[in-house]
Amino acid sequence: MANTSEPKRTLAKVSETKLGITVKKSENFSEWFTQVCSESGAQLADVRYGVQGFVVHRPWAMRIARKIYDAFEAEVEADGHEPYLFPTAIPEENLMKEKKHAGFTPNVFWIDYAGSQKLERRIALRPTGEAQIYPMYALWIQSYKDLPWKGYQSRITVFRNEMTTRPFLRGREFMFFETHDVFRTHDDALLQIKKDMEIMERVVSEKMKIPFIFFKRPSWDKFLGADNSFCSDTLNPDGRRNQISSTHDLGQNFAKAFDIKFDDEKRTQSYGWQTCFGPGIWRLIAALIAIHGDDNGLILPVEFAPVQAVIIPILFAGKEESNARVLEACTFAQRVAQDAGLRTHIDLRSDTPGFKFNDWELKGVPLRIEIGPKDVEKKQAVIVRRTDKKKTQVEMKQLGKTLLEEARTVDVEISKRSQNYFKDNTRTAITLQETIQLIETSRGFIKIPWCSTADEGKKCEEIFSKETTGGVICGTPFENEETPKKGMNCVVCGKPAKHIVWVAKSI
Amino acid sequence: MANTSEPKRTLAKVSETKLGITVKKSENFSEWFTQVCSESGAQLADVRYGVQGFVVHRPWAMRIARKIYDAFEAEVEADGHEPYLFPTAIPEENLMKEKKHAGFTPNVFWIDYAGSQKLERRIALRPTGEAQIYPMYALWIQSYKDLPWKGYQSRITVFRNEMTTRPFLRGREFMFFETHDVFRTHDDALLQIKKDMEIMERVVSEKMKIPFIFFKRPSWDKFLGADNSFCSDTLNPDGRRNQISSTHDLGQNFAKAFDIKFDDEKRTQSYGWQTCFGPGIWRLIAALIAIHGDDNGLILPVEFAPVQAVIIPILFAGKEESNARVLEACTFAQRVAQDAGLRTHIDLRSDTPGFKFNDWELKGVPLRIEIGPKDVEKKQAVIVRRTDKKKTQVEMKQLGKTLLEEARTVDVEISKRSQNYFKDNTRTAITLQETIQLIETSRGFIKIPWCSTADEGKKCEEIFSKETTGGVICGTPFENEETPKKGMNCVVCGKPAKHIVWVAKSI
Repeated sequence: MANTSEPKRTLAKVSETKLGITVKKSENFSEWFTQVCSESGAQLADVRYGVQGFVVHRPWAMRIARKIYDAFEAEVEADGHEPYLFPTAIPEENLMKEKKHAGFTPNVFWIDYAGSQKLERRIALRPTGEAQIYPMYALWIQSYKDLPWKGYQSRITVFRNEMTTRPFLRGREFMFFETHDVFRTHDDALLQIKKDMEIMERVVSEKMKIPFIFFKRPSWDKFLGADNSFCSDTLNPDGRRNQISSTHDLGQNFAKAFDIKFDDEKRTQSYGWQTCFGPGIWRLIAALIAIHGDDNGLILPVEFAPVQAVIIPILFAGKEESNARVLEACTFAQRVAQDAGLRTHIDLRSDTPGFKFNDWELKGVPLRIEIGPKDVEKKQAVIVRRTDKKKTQVEMKQLGKTLLEEARTVDVEISKRSQNYFKDNTRTAITLQETIQLIETSRGFIKIPWCSTADEGKKCEEIFSKETTGGVICGTPFENEETPKKGMNCVVCGKPAKHIVWVAKSI
Repeated sequence: MANTSEPKRTLAKVSETKLGITVKKSENFSEWFTQVCSESGAQLADVRYGVQGFVVHRPWAMRIARKIYDAFEAEVEADGHEPYLFPTAIPEENLMKEKKHAGFTPNVFWIDYAGSQKLERRIALRPTGEAQIYPMYALWIQSYKDLPWKGYQSRITVFRNEMTTRPFLRGREFMFFETHDVFRTHDDALLQIKKDMEIMERVVSEKMKIPFIFFKRPSWDKFLGADNSFCSDTLNPDGRRNQISSTHDLGQNFAKAFDIKFDDEKRTQSYGWQTCFGPGIWRLIAALIAIHGDDNGLILPVEFAPVQAVIIPILFAGKEESNARVLEACTFAQRVAQDAGLRTHIDLRSDTPGFKFNDWELKGVPLRIEIGPKDVEKKQAVIVRRTDKKKTQVEMKQLGKTLLEEARTVDVEISKRSQNYFKDNTRTAITLQETIQLIETSRGFIKIPWCSTADEGKKCEEIFSKETTGGVICGTPFENEETPKKGMNCVVCGKPAKHIVWVAKSI
């Protein structure tokens, strides 16, 4: 927990806004999610921008996003990646070079005009970085000494013409983070996939307290141009899987298409082996909202909270002297909290304490410190945890230590809760009938026996998807894949099962 | 100086690259600048991307840019600004709403197609934020209590169809940073302009060691839609002015066009008064390169150097034991330097020390630490300053203290040098003849008597620009404007001078 400065203002002018969420998360998750993001909620996004699928992202979301970016940037740099920035524009011919990857074009936005002048060659808005980055890799990479080559771009946006859009879950322009690596051998590339998984574990599982499985996708659900795709899926409260990262084993496909070659010791040339990795920054914010939040709004893991402890002075009209003492105690408490390494904010707005409690609960600040005249007298403060709203009276001299303990408790609490939810909503089935019933009643992940995750299994998924009205095969876990027991058969075709696959409905 | 981790690698694979700059900065600045940016220089940008005016920005430039962004973000947040992120796309009708601002459209890139489908309403790629941000301000701002309203977006790119392009100086897509503020009164807005100037002074003048003047532009050179524009100009070594920031007094023009109104205490409605501020992130990097660099490459001010002290072990083939001791001493030196708060890197590449010296000099790292077997024996290290390449032998136990002193010396040196250059290249003239001669022989800024910076002075500038083959009126300093002496007349029309204006050629 770095001791960074507090936000100067309250991050949104809410004095005149009616705050609050009018539905229960458990009863109408979709509407709850919309309200949490909106003006009357945590004010994360504004959909009133006026271009379908393009959304304005507001300060509280940006501050959270920044912490997520910081975490991933630190991780990939520690793993040897260097930052770069490519243009938003991609020449059409580059997008077409890798034959399968060219499948992106139907979802691409095209620039045709500069002012009133028609461009000679139209330009695509980047849907993802491969087709822009790899032509440069072909120039930069010459020798085996240059490998492994590890680069990344961060805090950029990409564009895809999605049909249905939703803040943080699916947009036509969304925040992106992508690494692009080149190796001498396929084995080196496979090692990187494991490293990417470990980065996800450290950032998402350990720090964000979001459980997920790192799946190997079935072959019919690979990234366009990849030999294999590995994706992290977490589980929304409506039981739908939310894909929060992808790592692709690109083999030598792009290296051949873009001519990325290196000389080895004997000056013979080989094509590089490539991987790329992208955590979904907005999808991770969606997961934070969806998984940790409750009926009162967000609950943020301590490390990702822009304000970790908000201080609310309890003031009384006309009691100036007493109020001054309360404010003095608040300033003292802030200094103590900051010395303990916490990001703090004193809420000095003219609104009632109740309004402020509500506002900061909506925003998911892990700890609240209340100080009123009686607390000043008793040389104490009241700490309230966002999770269970338990009030604890603390002697001022114990404040720093207690705050850190309470912050830890919030993290442990949301971690336990999210892990339990994930575990409780992972079920098994061995027949299609059973699977359909589970998907309809309980949703979540279901582990089922399956014939094949290679292309020949695709037919079964088509049937499966129809029968389950939209169930998808997430794949098999990258690590600790289960083997089907003897006699287990594919729930669709009845052939002997080669895999236990995880299935779910998708967001 | 924060003690952040070192870059893991050497930021570019240069082993097989021929490094070096083949021209002198003083003899051919333009070619020098191109070479410094290129593959054989500091590897800042790559122009081989394949779409005219769209450039790839490489790790060393991105690391410097990040430090500049960090500095401005910290400043504007301390001044109460909140971060947000708007889409890259702007609806055409919004771009047209403020009549003068609509003048941007001839330079705008247009999205006409999504996949193969023609869009009903074409979308502009943002040339600047006003037309996308202010419609939302109209929704967000309701009451005088909401004011001042201060927001900003950072680490975004904007798009303009520039005719001639140059890395860091002028591009079709460039890194952007913009604040947008709304106030109750024009006086509040004017105060903000002064604050913006002070931010520029703290970041650019004090930290980056780049001198500049904060000008009030003549009325014919205002931002489209502004009542007044205030811009910072620094001076390139070729004597051309480089505009590195702009702050616009937007009056109520955009508030009226976009309906940004607030209720005051008596519930009567008024339009807000607006300002916006944008330091040019790429332009500032251009200034860092151009102003501080020398014939051997960049020289970075200590605070903006991704690596502040690079450690080069001097190793000898076959001397394994001795080499091990040298490497041990390097690791020790790194720890000492890091403890002193410096960002360090040990260069372990297999290249010769000479190659490494060259490489890090090109990149402008302020300090180099050399350690060889003799230094190990004497328990010392050699420190070399990037500025004058003076070698200092330092006892290991004095290393931390000495490094900080030497770093300071580098900063003082480049600061003095850039200030002297700025001062020595600011001249005065009182006739057109004299001005023409100065512009042709010495370039730089020239202070001249001028009739008027209001619209009626525009005719004189047209003549002035023709006579001086491209001289422009930069304006009058925002603070400490000089008054013309009695009897001084406009160098063009001969009418009594109302102002002493600064003129220069522009990049």
